[in-house]
Amino acid sequence: MPTDTYQAEAPLVAGMTDNNGGTLRIADPEAAEADLDTTLSHPGSVRINVKGAFIVDQGTTTPASSNGRGSPNHHETKDIRLPNHTAVVSHIAIDIGGSLAKLVYFSREAHSTDPGGRLNFVSFETDHINECLEFMHTLKQKYQKLNGGADRPVELCVMATGGGAYKYYDMVREVLGVDVLREDEMECLIIGLDFFITEIPREVFTYSEANPMHFVAPSDNVYPYLLVNIGSGVSFLKVSGPREYERVGGTSLGGGTLWGLLSLLTGARTFDEMLDLASRGDNTTVDMLVGDIYGTDYGKIGLKSTTIASSFGKVFRKKRQAENEAEDSGGLGHKDPHRHPVHQHHDDHDHDDPTSPHHENGHNSNGHTPPFSSADISRSLLYAISNNIGQIAFLQSQIHGLSHIYFGGSFIRGHPQTMNTLSYAIKFWSKGAKQAYFLRHEGYLGAVGAFLKRQPRNWGRRGSFEEAEAAALQARMIARARESEIMASCSDAEDGGVLVA
Amino acid sequence: MPTDTYQAEAPLVAGMTDNNGGTLRIADPEAAEADLDTTLSHPGSVRINVKGAFIVDQGTTTPASSNGRGSPNHHETKDIRLPNHTAVVSHIAIDIGGSLAKLVYFSREAHSTDPGGRLNFVSFETDHINECLEFMHTLKQKYQKLNGGADRPVELCVMATGGGAYKYYDMVREVLGVDVLREDEMECLIIGLDFFITEIPREVFTYSEANPMHFVAPSDNVYPYLLVNIGSGVSFLKVSGPREYERVGGTSLGGGTLWGLLSLLTGARTFDEMLDLASRGDNTTVDMLVGDIYGTDYGKIGLKSTTIASSFGKVFRKKRQAENEAEDSGGLGHKDPHRHPVHQHHDDHDHDDPTSPHHENGHNSNGHTPPFSSADISRSLLYAISNNIGQIAFLQSQIHGLSHIYFGGSFIRGHPQTMNTLSYAIKFWSKGAKQAYFLRHEGYLGAVGAFLKRQPRNWGRRGSFEEAEAAALQARMIARARESEIMASCSDAEDGGVLVA
Repeated sequence: MPTDTYQAEAPLVAGMTDNNGGTLRIADPEAAEADLDTTLSHPGSVRINVKGAFIVDQGTTTPASSNGRGSPNHHETKDIRLPNHTAVVSHIAIDIGGSLAKLVYFSREAHSTDPGGRLNFVSFETDHINECLEFMHTLKQKYQKLNGGADRPVELCVMATGGGAYKYYDMVREVLGVDVLREDEMECLIIGLDFFITEIPREVFTYSEANPMHFVAPSDNVYPYLLVNIGSGVSFLKVSGPREYERVGGTSLGGGTLWGLLSLLTGARTFDEMLDLASRGDNTTVDMLVGDIYGTDYGKIGLKSTTIASSFGKVFRKKRQAENEAEDSGGLGHKDPHRHPVHQHHDDHDHDDPTSPHHENGHNSNGHTPPFSSADISRSLLYAISNNIGQIAFLQSQIHGLSHIYFGGSFIRGHPQTMNTLSYAIKFWSKGAKQAYFLRHEGYLGAVGAFLKRQPRNWGRRGSFEEAEAAALQARMIARARESEIMASCSDAEDGGVLVA
Repeated sequence: MPTDTYQAEAPLVAGMTDNNGGTLRIADPEAAEADLDTTLSHPGSVRINVKGAFIVDQGTTTPASSNGRGSPNHHETKDIRLPNHTAVVSHIAIDIGGSLAKLVYFSREAHSTDPGGRLNFVSFETDHINECLEFMHTLKQKYQKLNGGADRPVELCVMATGGGAYKYYDMVREVLGVDVLREDEMECLIIGLDFFITEIPREVFTYSEANPMHFVAPSDNVYPYLLVNIGSGVSFLKVSGPREYERVGGTSLGGGTLWGLLSLLTGARTFDEMLDLASRGDNTTVDMLVGDIYGTDYGKIGLKSTTIASSFGKVFRKKRQAENEAEDSGGLGHKDPHRHPVHQHHDDHDHDDPTSPHHENGHNSNGHTPPFSSADISRSLLYAISNNIGQIAFLQSQIHGLSHIYFGGSFIRGHPQTMNTLSYAIKFWSKGAKQAYFLRHEGYLGAVGAFLKRQPRNWGRRGSFEEAEAAALQARMIARARESEIMASCSDAEDGGVLVA
């Protein structure tokens, strides 16, 4: 179950107890203000609800662990503050993927008389769907208490997308006793991405080693672009306009591949542990470089000696060689020619912590098997998967004539090496003509998209321009409705427009 | 060192002892004859030397093992018989890649008065380059004995390509005391492929489960096409005409990745063991299918429930779950939360043979860790790598407008599942518009290309048409030269034309 980390978030609360509100702060408010000036440079297109919207930087992320076994759930501290939003929100949204379930919900500020609130982001491993449901159940109770009351309880509505919206449909309905509205995964992804691109300052950025987070100002003119969504698997979507998209391809070599193989090869037990290992590893001990084959560059076709020719290309030879040497010295014996030291646990190993970059994988007690360190293996696989996705993204962008490539999904997790590899791949293959874009809420595109499909009318800048009058009217209606607690049901919200229309 | 398997081949021999000649046979000579009829349907283009050329089918392949540790070298039994070739050949060719060194040499038939001979194909692991050099040294001695004699020894010339031609250049020259001529790897690949496509019947085939080896008749009109060469790494070459080519891309996810990761994960110690495991595995125990996420098809975007959404996508969850259960039951204890059962060797396991499809990887003594079998892991990774190469090949073929895609390189090894996966990927992505082609000498494109760059004049059909007269003249000269043993030096051969010009 969620621990006190969650108590910092006060769903739809005005008077709710806030145990942790003091930690909320805006990092570099002046910079945020500057971004907002940019955002506001087209005054006509900015309207009430997201006016002043910004990402709440709480410094470091605070992964929460409910059972000490890793991070079965993870609460993003990069909430999005919507200081001017007043309408009642009676729904939450969940995107249940193959590995992670991503939840988005709205909450009022604790201890605040401000009318606004914030979007909260939290994820669970799909494996622990029960914990996710428990958390949703708590949310439901709070929503009911705050928006309804015992006499007229507010119906919470759950917007659901991703494969789990189908697989766990009955379970969610039964356990929570709520209505579940399913939305198409791909459509939610692009609705969510459009929201982040067009509405949220300091959300979209480019990565380079010199400038790891170079923010890109929100823009209304973003089409066409390629969205590469990297979850357990990878989808490539060509987006030609709002809600105009096509899934042009996919690859099964995604986050699930990295996490699965590294859990077998390194003993790391969380994704973040794996990324931590990768950040400390040296892939050249396991990867075969052009220089390992040629002894030099292969200049004629533009391959540097440092180019990776074959991921894990050194492993087979090194391992075999060491085993043969061990056999020759009698170390492994000849009883079982198939015995493979990598499966032996080296009990008296000095570095038994697999998160140590020096943790040696496949090290046997004779010391003959080459020490493939967990860190080196992690970095090699991270490079391999990221490079591959970057290359396919480039090829798809060539075929479909797209120069903007957005990377989303829970694979990236803000990890510098991952973004560097993806950025480098796009630059390398496109000879600098194309650009990789990243998002701070990369993992929540689908969840936010689902959330927005059931949003209150006129939430957001786009679309509200023509409806300014109606918006003002509705704002008054909502305020009245809230007072009389009659507009909080899911069926009412169903009439609400969709932001990214 | 090569064992008696090699003695079946008698390099440039007429009177040499043949210990194994009786095993030489032509499989289905009538079919071969039928192919030849096709080949000969353009009579003007067929000339002396390759007239009657065919692949010698010796039934099963006979991998040779020099030390019982696996297959450090492997002799192809798919020799190419050139019954009408008479010229002296004084060179051998080697393509030294990151993992394998591929050798091609010409030999006379043992115990035969036929004027012809055959092309022999043998490969060594680059790791065992010394064994390869030893074999080449033996060849050199035989060549000298047969073509020169003590008074006037014939200089053997080594044509070398691949990265190892540079990396091991000095070593080969010094150890063998021969001249080494280096040729560009990519150029050799396409020269070799062109030779196989245009000259050799029953060489090129398409694969389908219903018809695993559907031969394609040799053709002179093959351009443009895409060559996908899968060795340790992968190269994609656009070939527009003879010697007109461009390396349009590459991926580091190739054979080296499969062999390296599987050697860590399964304990298999040869490539063929790995393929054998893969042929018996069930990838759905480790791969996350669309149905695992959705519980059904994702029909809207055309994904079947059986489509692989994430390679190894089930592993992380299964492994974590099992570890948690083991911890809850006290099985693993809480002393070391990072301890990973996959690294424990289960000494009293019933199936300690990793080549058994039921060999369980990561099985601990409590039986809690999910039994990821080596066979399942092997199949999953084979699918992942093959699918990925197939997809990139398709994308490259789209960008460059190519409908014929040839797959070469030592990764394939005639393995049905590999070819099926590559074929399926091309068909799936191209919606049936494009076709994957395979070759029986897939691993020897570069070596044959290097061999042909130093071939005797007028070897082959193409190019010999216009030079029929000259060819006849040269044939007479060669016959005379051979008698007087004056034309066997490498420098003479240097004047020879190149087949695929």
